[in-house]
Amino acid sequence: MSTNDIGFKAALEEAKQGALEKGVPIGACLVSKEGKILGRGHNMRMQKDSPTLHAEMSALENAGRLPASAYAGSTMYTTLSPCDMCTGACILYKVSRVVLGENNTFVGAEELLRSKGIEVINLKDAECEALMKTFIENQPGDWNEDIGEE
Amino acid sequence: MSTNDIGFKAALEEAKQGALEKGVPIGACLVSKEGKILGRGHNMRMQKDSPTLHAEMSALENAGRLPASAYAGSTMYTTLSPCDMCTGACILYKVSRVVLGENNTFVGAEELLRSKGIEVINLKDAECEALMKTFIENQPGDWNEDIGEE
Repeated sequence: MSTNDIGFKAALEEAKQGALEKGVPIGACLVSKEGKILGRGHNMRMQKDSPTLHAEMSALENAGRLPASAYAGSTMYTTLSPCDMCTGACILYKVSRVVLGENNTFVGAEELLRSKGIEVINLKDAECEALMKTFIENQPGDWNEDIGEE
Repeated sequence: MSTNDIGFKAALEEAKQGALEKGVPIGACLVSKEGKILGRGHNMRMQKDSPTLHAEMSALENAGRLPASAYAGSTMYTTLSPCDMCTGACILYKVSRVVLGENNTFVGAEELLRSKGIEVINLKDAECEALMKTFIENQPGDWNEDIGEE
């Protein structure tokens, strides 16, 4: 796993698109065991007034209805450590691996993922972190709302 | 908490609407600390080809963007024990209580909810259970897909 993976590249493109839209700059991409992109997307809180379409949820939603077998061996790439909701979605559909861009700006439920046998890899990517730092600095209220904090 | 609560009544109405639409017959309703319905909805897998709009997610989505304070003291009513994804969403937004219709047809992540300090109440409602039993019998493939099983 590296920042050259097609899944990570797509997730980062999605995060940048989110930033351009003045939204929460987090992107995600679900890649099948065979290396095919099943779905990709970015956080849609501002764009769709959505409290559920975090980046990973958007990627799952854009992948559409799939049988359980389609998620087997899949990897969820996301530019940020996944929150409790997105973690739960990865557990529900039995994604095999979560590759995250960074967890310096937010630490999600990585331990819960691991406890369910899901591999978690942190790419410690500076670009992902810079996107989040800028966003949190400029739109602290939007960020707190997105993670259910005051 | 009883089956007379407005939140449970709304959740059950939503589940029945889902059944009428030949969808997954699970409904949910998010009620504020003050007793106001913030959002309600039902599972939209079939209706919107959505893998993320489980009933609880639909209720959260229909409630729209809210500050963290709006979820404080709130109750998520759902006609079925919540799956990992919906559990994660309740944890993310710090819903205070989950009231579920039944857990005989599916047991979700109730222990995880409790471990996070979220109260869980099971109403053991026969109507909720009957809706699910009929659905699982008639549409086993759709049900398995909804819970990420083969």
